[in-house]
Amino acid sequence: MTAPAFKATVLTLFPEMFPGPLGHSLAGKALKDGLWSLETVDIRAHARDKHRTVDDTPFGGGAGMVMRPDVVDAAITAAHPGEGPLIYLTPRGEVLRQPRVKALAKEPAVTILCGRYEGVDQRVLDKHNALEISIGDFVLSGGEAAAITLLDAVVRMVPGVVGKTESLEDESFETGLLEYPLYTRPQVWNDVPVPDVLMSGHHANIDKWRRQQAEDITRQRRPDLWSGYVAAQKQEQEGQ
Amino acid sequence: MTAPAFKATVLTLFPEMFPGPLGHSLAGKALKDGLWSLETVDIRAHARDKHRTVDDTPFGGGAGMVMRPDVVDAAITAAHPGEGPLIYLTPRGEVLRQPRVKALAKEPAVTILCGRYEGVDQRVLDKHNALEISIGDFVLSGGEAAAITLLDAVVRMVPGVVGKTESLEDESFETGLLEYPLYTRPQVWNDVPVPDVLMSGHHANIDKWRRQQAEDITRQRRPDLWSGYVAAQKQEQEGQ
Repeated sequence: MTAPAFKATVLTLFPEMFPGPLGHSLAGKALKDGLWSLETVDIRAHARDKHRTVDDTPFGGGAGMVMRPDVVDAAITAAHPGEGPLIYLTPRGEVLRQPRVKALAKEPAVTILCGRYEGVDQRVLDKHNALEISIGDFVLSGGEAAAITLLDAVVRMVPGVVGKTESLEDESFETGLLEYPLYTRPQVWNDVPVPDVLMSGHHANIDKWRRQQAEDITRQRRPDLWSGYVAAQKQEQEGQ
Repeated sequence: MTAPAFKATVLTLFPEMFPGPLGHSLAGKALKDGLWSLETVDIRAHARDKHRTVDDTPFGGGAGMVMRPDVVDAAITAAHPGEGPLIYLTPRGEVLRQPRVKALAKEPAVTILCGRYEGVDQRVLDKHNALEISIGDFVLSGGEAAAITLLDAVVRMVPGVVGKTESLEDESFETGLLEYPLYTRPQVWNDVPVPDVLMSGHHANIDKWRRQQAEDITRQRRPDLWSGYVAAQKQEQEGQ
C-alpha cells in the first residue's frame, strides 16, 4: 500500500473518542483503503508528575481549569513533525468555511489540538503559531467533536475519497448560494406532486428554476451570504 | 432512576456511529448517570422493498442521490412522538449559535434527522415542519458529525451535567466577545512570564485587562461579533 495522501494526528485527552464516527461510512472506508491515516496522541501521557496532571487553575482567578503549557508543548513536540499546520480548535478561531476545508485537504498532514476545560495556556499556542479554527459560535465540552467534524469535511475533499459519480462541484457553497430543494420518487407522495418543471425534461428551465429557488432561500435565510453573492454577480457583470 | 430530563433521538443510516464520542467524558458520564438519554433509529429499517432502498435519483437530473420521502417519513413517524422539535441538519439551515443551544437544552426531547447523499426530499421536511439547523458553511459527508456536535453543545447545558464548580456564565459568547487569553502554571515557561497584571491580585485591574484583551481579539478577528457588541454597549449606555 502506498503512503496515505493525507495524515491526520489528533492530540486529545480522550483518544478513545477516535476514530468514532470517522471509522464508518465514507471516511471509514477511505481510512481502511489507506487514502488517509488517523493517529491519536494522548496528551496525558506527556504529563510530568506522578498524578499525570495536565491542567491547573488560571492565573488571575476565574472558574475552571487551564491546560498547562509544558504538558501540551511536550505532546505537540512528540506528535507534530512540522509538516502541515498545527490546528487549535477554539471558539476564538477563524470561523470554518468550505474554502479553508478545501485548502486543508491539500495539505500532506494536519495536527489537531483538542482543548478541554476552559482552554490552553496562551504561551504554547503562541510558540507553535497555532492556526486557530472555530466550527461555530457555540460552546462544546472540548475540541473532540469539532475535530471529528473538521476531519469529516476535509477527508471527503481528499482525492479519491468521493467517487467520480458524485459531484464535488455542484454542491452547497460552490455557487455562493444555499442549495435548491431536492425531489425523488415517488413522483406523487402524500398527495404532493414533484414540481412540474422538474418533470419537463427541459434542462434550461430546470436550471433556471433551481437557480431561482437557491436565490430565494439564500435571500430569506442568509442575508450575509446573499449580499456576498449579489456583490460577486455585480462584479462579474461589470467585468464583461 | 428518574426519567432523564433530556431525551435525544437520532434518525440515521449509520446508528453504529452513536454514541461515539458522546459515550465518553462529560456527555458520556451524564448519559451513564441518566441525566439524558440517546436513542438511534436506523432509517434503513423503514425501507419498503426487499433491497432496503432508501434513496433514488433526483427528479430534474443532477449528481448524487436523494433520500426518499416515504422511507424518511416512516422513520420519523416511528421515532418522533411530537415532543420537542424535529431537527434536520443541513447547510441550508439556521446557523447554530449558543442561544439556540441553550433553548434546545430546555426542551424535554429533540429528534434529529441526519441526511446523507445529496439530501432529503423536500416534501417530507415540509410535512413535519422540520427545524433546519446548520453547524456551519462547510459540507459534511452526512448529518452524523453535526448531530454529535450539536448534542455535545446541548447536553452540557442540561441541568446537572456541568458541575457547579465550573461556570456556565463566564464563558465564550456570554459577553458577546471572544475569550481573553488564559495562563496557568508554570509562572515562567519557555522564558515567557505570565502577564504581570494577572499576578497582581488586583481584581479590578485583572477584569479590566481581560475585558480589553477580549475586545481587542474580537475586533481583530470577528468584525461581525464586534459590531453587534458595540451596538449593544451603545444601547446600554443610552438606557442609563
